[in-house]
Amino acid sequence: MAVNLPPPDPESLYPVPGVELGVAMAGIKKPNRRDLLVMRLAPGAAVAGVFTRNRFCAAPVALARLHLKNPVRALVVNTGNANAGTGKEGLHRALEVCKAVAAQVQCRPKQVLPFSTGVIMEQLPAEKLVAALPALKKSSWFEAAEAIMTTDTVPKACSRKVKLSGGEAVVTGIAKGAGMIRPDMATMLGFVATDAKVSGAGLRRMAKTVADQSFNCVTVDGDTSTNDSFMLIATGKGPSASSGKDLLVLQNAVAEVSRLLAQAIIRDGEGATKFVKVTVERGRNEAECRKVAYAIAHSPLVKTAFFASDPNLGRILAVIGYAGIRDLDTGRVDLYLDDVPVAKGGARHVSYAEEDGVKAMQKPEFTVRAVLNRGKAAATLWTCDLSYDYVKINAEYRT
Amino acid sequence: MAVNLPPPDPESLYPVPGVELGVAMAGIKKPNRRDLLVMRLAPGAAVAGVFTRNRFCAAPVALARLHLKNPVRALVVNTGNANAGTGKEGLHRALEVCKAVAAQVQCRPKQVLPFSTGVIMEQLPAEKLVAALPALKKSSWFEAAEAIMTTDTVPKACSRKVKLSGGEAVVTGIAKGAGMIRPDMATMLGFVATDAKVSGAGLRRMAKTVADQSFNCVTVDGDTSTNDSFMLIATGKGPSASSGKDLLVLQNAVAEVSRLLAQAIIRDGEGATKFVKVTVERGRNEAECRKVAYAIAHSPLVKTAFFASDPNLGRILAVIGYAGIRDLDTGRVDLYLDDVPVAKGGARHVSYAEEDGVKAMQKPEFTVRAVLNRGKAAATLWTCDLSYDYVKINAEYRT
Repeated sequence: MAVNLPPPDPESLYPVPGVELGVAMAGIKKPNRRDLLVMRLAPGAAVAGVFTRNRFCAAPVALARLHLKNPVRALVVNTGNANAGTGKEGLHRALEVCKAVAAQVQCRPKQVLPFSTGVIMEQLPAEKLVAALPALKKSSWFEAAEAIMTTDTVPKACSRKVKLSGGEAVVTGIAKGAGMIRPDMATMLGFVATDAKVSGAGLRRMAKTVADQSFNCVTVDGDTSTNDSFMLIATGKGPSASSGKDLLVLQNAVAEVSRLLAQAIIRDGEGATKFVKVTVERGRNEAECRKVAYAIAHSPLVKTAFFASDPNLGRILAVIGYAGIRDLDTGRVDLYLDDVPVAKGGARHVSYAEEDGVKAMQKPEFTVRAVLNRGKAAATLWTCDLSYDYVKINAEYRT
Repeated sequence: MAVNLPPPDPESLYPVPGVELGVAMAGIKKPNRRDLLVMRLAPGAAVAGVFTRNRFCAAPVALARLHLKNPVRALVVNTGNANAGTGKEGLHRALEVCKAVAAQVQCRPKQVLPFSTGVIMEQLPAEKLVAALPALKKSSWFEAAEAIMTTDTVPKACSRKVKLSGGEAVVTGIAKGAGMIRPDMATMLGFVATDAKVSGAGLRRMAKTVADQSFNCVTVDGDTSTNDSFMLIATGKGPSASSGKDLLVLQNAVAEVSRLLAQAIIRDGEGATKFVKVTVERGRNEAECRKVAYAIAHSPLVKTAFFASDPNLGRILAVIGYAGIRDLDTGRVDLYLDDVPVAKGGARHVSYAEEDGVKAMQKPEFTVRAVLNRGKAAATLWTCDLSYDYVKINAEYRT
């Protein structure tokens, strides 16, 4: 059950001029389920992307990274099979799909970006995808969000309008969940499109910046799965964003959409019952703050304490101690649960009463805030708890 | 329920001349439970130790590290309270205990090493420990192993005899479990004693080498808890180990005892149903092999797959891909489950049948072997699975 995550209202999702969506049922893993999405882009659209850093990146990731050097005309996304751990044969099959999409869209195969999500280490049934292409049905962003779901319980989509000096632009995005929370479905996909006109270089900078403020701030398992991809599309059919001010306004809207999508992935984490914000403040630099925040958010001990609403907060101090800051003075570390001061100077706060900690942790959303008191940098992540259902889902997923 | 771990036969545990053991009931957390151990050493005994690298090291760890510079005459170990995250007051209380032990043993407080295990972030009831000291009762190694247990279900002790050129020496050790597997009980303690005579410098080298071959090869949570300590004692009441050959013979016996103790901790991991050896071979250096092995052993996804006997082996490939070897050629990675070849060249092995994988993983003990094919180094770790009971125990521990 997702934490405070109603399905998006289809009416709230603005179409993006220059992006045509089509979905079909390819029967990749199950029959009678929309599992194939093609996003057709108008000529001249700019596309930028951020991909997983996993060395075992999936075949479609390798191909998308390569094809991104060309003017992109289409993206093809399938669910049910990740085409990862599939060797050369996997690359060959992903390319087959690109070829078929190219024939339909009338472009070259290297102008098509492929994305796959689903089971690892099984070959992609490319022939099923190719066979389903003629049956593609024009779809809305809501239907597109549904078509890329795997074990997600709620489709994830979000939209904003933004005023640029040349007029109003739209920003609409969809995403699907992933990572350690989504067993075999080791894939987090995010697609955000705008009709604004942005240069290729500007879009690449924006994609990187936005990814660091959104998809790279949730865990799940950080940026470590085989298929993670975040793609940013600017079709150029709407107003131009070339001035610094317009670029910033647009970037803020793209970042907001992306952050909401990334947070939706955590809210819909398998077995998740809590949505937790982890903030680390007053570190020497952002990197060390992120290191500590990730250590807290990844600790199975801390995550089970979240689940149990058990303010067993020594666990968090212990994690801060092993997070890898060698010269950390633990005698200066403070810890808060929402507004409740828990630890001061590395030890239990004199005023801390455990019932206050319990009360804070019983809420479906709360904040853990660690203050290192050694600098001016900060970092924030979003994560979820570790529940019985996490083990159940991961242990029984394929049986 | 521990995996293939019967309690040690008390008869198999040899006394160590020069070490006198005493246990008492101090009522630290629960009444009527032996929770206090004092190890009194003969004058001239050498002691070396390896401690947690956690920056939030517990007060007793800070003190033991300091006192180790002096000729050590006693070790005092309590269970029920870790005296970690307790600030200056914690140091003060640990010192109070050292003073009381010193008065009894007739040495100076700085010749006493304190060790604590139990709940974090609560002050040590030092007065209870001090009050219980006069009631210390002479004990066996088996009783000493029982007295340091927290949530361990089986006492952990092991003993060997070894022939040195000057005669027979004994090596006897005890340990208790810890880490991410032992929630608040974030402490892994190991004490190994021999009556052989070893120089201080020789013993320090031996402690470091042996720790790397035993306690640092299990996970749990690696070397990251607040109280982890491994102490090696050589009383000098038996034969001398001064030649290179004698030192090596002794070291091998100490390493064997330590390895069995470390493995016992994993076998008795809370909720553990599987004991898994993780070997990474043909890496460029040992460090990168260890990095990959730890990543496999720490992955919640992989651990739940172990629990479910689900050879969902793409998960292991994905972990290898994000373990941090930047220039890893995934197209050369092979993977085995016991003798079953699972992946070759980064993709599913042509001969791999899933029922063979299931059969291997259904056993209570099995080996995961990853071959990187990029060098000659190797590393091995021991770990356990992640079960429903892990979440249950960690979520409900204090309620």
